[in-house]
Amino acid sequence: MDEAAIQKVAVIGFGTVGVGWTALFVANGCDVTVHDPAAGSLADMQAALATSLASLRELGRDQLGTLAVAASPEEAAAAADFVQENAPERLDFKRDLLRRLDGAAPAHAIIATSTSSLLWSDLARDCAQPGRVIVGHPFNPPHIMPLVELFGPDAAVLDRATAFYTQLGMRPVRLRKEMQGHIANRLASALYREAVYLVEQGVASVGEVDAALRDGPGLRWAIMGAHLTYHLGGGKGGIRHYLEHLGPSQERRWQDLGQPVLSPELKEKLVEGVEAVADGRSVEELEAERDAALLALLRARADVTP
Amino acid sequence: MDEAAIQKVAVIGFGTVGVGWTALFVANGCDVTVHDPAAGSLADMQAALATSLASLRELGRDQLGTLAVAASPEEAAAAADFVQENAPERLDFKRDLLRRLDGAAPAHAIIATSTSSLLWSDLARDCAQPGRVIVGHPFNPPHIMPLVELFGPDAAVLDRATAFYTQLGMRPVRLRKEMQGHIANRLASALYREAVYLVEQGVASVGEVDAALRDGPGLRWAIMGAHLTYHLGGGKGGIRHYLEHLGPSQERRWQDLGQPVLSPELKEKLVEGVEAVADGRSVEELEAERDAALLALLRARADVTP
Repeated sequence: MDEAAIQKVAVIGFGTVGVGWTALFVANGCDVTVHDPAAGSLADMQAALATSLASLRELGRDQLGTLAVAASPEEAAAAADFVQENAPERLDFKRDLLRRLDGAAPAHAIIATSTSSLLWSDLARDCAQPGRVIVGHPFNPPHIMPLVELFGPDAAVLDRATAFYTQLGMRPVRLRKEMQGHIANRLASALYREAVYLVEQGVASVGEVDAALRDGPGLRWAIMGAHLTYHLGGGKGGIRHYLEHLGPSQERRWQDLGQPVLSPELKEKLVEGVEAVADGRSVEELEAERDAALLALLRARADVTP
Repeated sequence: MDEAAIQKVAVIGFGTVGVGWTALFVANGCDVTVHDPAAGSLADMQAALATSLASLRELGRDQLGTLAVAASPEEAAAAADFVQENAPERLDFKRDLLRRLDGAAPAHAIIATSTSSLLWSDLARDCAQPGRVIVGHPFNPPHIMPLVELFGPDAAVLDRATAFYTQLGMRPVRLRKEMQGHIANRLASALYREAVYLVEQGVASVGEVDAALRDGPGLRWAIMGAHLTYHLGGGKGGIRHYLEHLGPSQERRWQDLGQPVLSPELKEKLVEGVEAVADGRSVEELEAERDAALLALLRARADVTP
C-alpha cells in the first residue's frame, strides 16, 4: 500500500498532544476522527484547534481535511488508514487500548502511540498484529516541532510511517533499539539534572541558567547536534583529535556533574525561580510566545539548511 | 569610570577564540592591540579576521576600529581599557600571564580571561589587583554567539564588563558562585554524556542522535530554557504541578541515564559516526555552514523575542 493512500486518520486522546496531532493531520488534508471521552462536542474541538491551525497556516499547511467525533476507540479506528494514540501514560490502560485499536482498525492501518516513557515491547504485547503498532513520539508542541521518534519491529511499516510523517513536514528519527525515554527526552533529562544542580548549588538562578542555555548551547544545537559540535571543538583534527586530547577532560567533567535530589526545599527554589522568570505570564501566554518564536526560527532555518 | 570610555582593547592569544573576540571588538569600533607569538604579521591577522568581520557586518556591526600588533603581553596591555586573555588552558601559564597583564595594564583597566575550565580563584591568585580580573567566557564562535559567562569578586567591575559586552551585542550571564565549567559547558557536557551513551548502546547513530537534538530539544532551547520548558510541561499547574506529580519520574530517569567510558572502541564508533555525518565536508566548511545558519536564526529570533 502506498503512503499517499493515508487519508483517514484516527486520533485517540485529545489532550495537548492529541490536539497538536489533530491540527497537523487536518491542516495537511487528512480526514480525522477523534475519540476522547472528555473532548466535548465537535464545536468545542474546533475551538481547541483554532490556534494550532493558525500556526500551521503560517507554515504553509492549509489543505484542510474534515473533522469528526467518534463515541469509542473502535469506532474512530474502524475506517482509519493511520491511528495516533495519545492516552495517559499508564501501561495497563494503554496496552489494552492498543489491543482494542488493533482489533478494530483495517488490516492495512498503522497504529502509532505517542508514548514518551513506555516501551513498544510492553505496549504491543497483547495485539494480534503487533508489527503494525509503532512508537511515534512527537515533541511538544507536536504541530510545530519537526521531531517524531519512531520505533517498531517491521521496517516496511516504519518506512510507510516515515513517508507519511515526512509528508506532514516532520523529521522522523528511527530508533535502532528501544529505550525508555527514546532519544530526545533522555538528552533533555540529562541536561535538566545539571540545570537543577546549578540552581541547587547557588551558581545561578533559574532564569540565569535558562538564559545561558538559550544564548549558548541551545541556540547552537538548533543547528548542529552535540556530536558534530565536539567535532568542530577539535579544530582541524576534528572529533578524532578532540577525543584523543580532550576525551580524558570530558570524562573528568562527567564525574563532576551534579546528582541533585528533588527535596521539598529544592522544589520550592525551582518554583520560585520559574515564577520570577514567568513574571506573571500564564502558561498559555508563554506557550503562545514560544510558538511564535518557534515558527520564526523554523522559517529562518528552512532558508539556510536543507 | 564610564563603560563608554572603553575604547582600547588588548587581545592576548589569537587562536579561534582570540580571532572571534578581535573581530567582535574591531567591528564595534574598538581599537584593538593583539599579542600572540604565532599570530604573524598585521596582514596575516587581517586575513584571519575577514570571514568573521563579514558575519558581523550581517549583524549590523560595522563600525571598524583599528588593529595593531604588540610584541609582548605587557606592550598590548599598557594602554588598554579592557584586556581579553585567550591563552591555552594551562593553570600555571595563565596565572603567570594574568599577573603580568595586571602589572602592565592601567589601573582602571578590566582584565577578562576566556577560560572555559579554570577557576577565577586559582587564576587571579598572584595578581596585585585581583578584583579587576574576571572570567569572561565566550561560546564558540565568540563573534556570533550571544553568551558570555562572567565571574569575579567585584560587583562594580562586573557591572562595567556587563555594560561593555552588552554594547557589543552579547548577552552576559553572571555566575553567583564559581564552578568549574561555568554553566553552559556543564550543561553541554551532561547532555553529551547521554548522547555518547545512546550511540554506545546502539539506540541510534551519531547522526540520528544529532538530528533528534536539532529538531527537538535543541530547537526549543534556542527559545526557552530547560526550567521554563518543564514549567510548560506541567500544563496549567506549571512547574509546581510538574515537580509534585512528575518529579519522582524525572528522578527515576536521572538514575537511568548512561555512564559511558570512552574506550578505544567507543571512540572509534564516534569518529566513524561523525565522519559519516560530515560526509566529506571539512571542519572549515562545517563552521561556515554553522555560522550562516546561526546568523539567520539570530536575526529571526531578534524579531520575535526581546
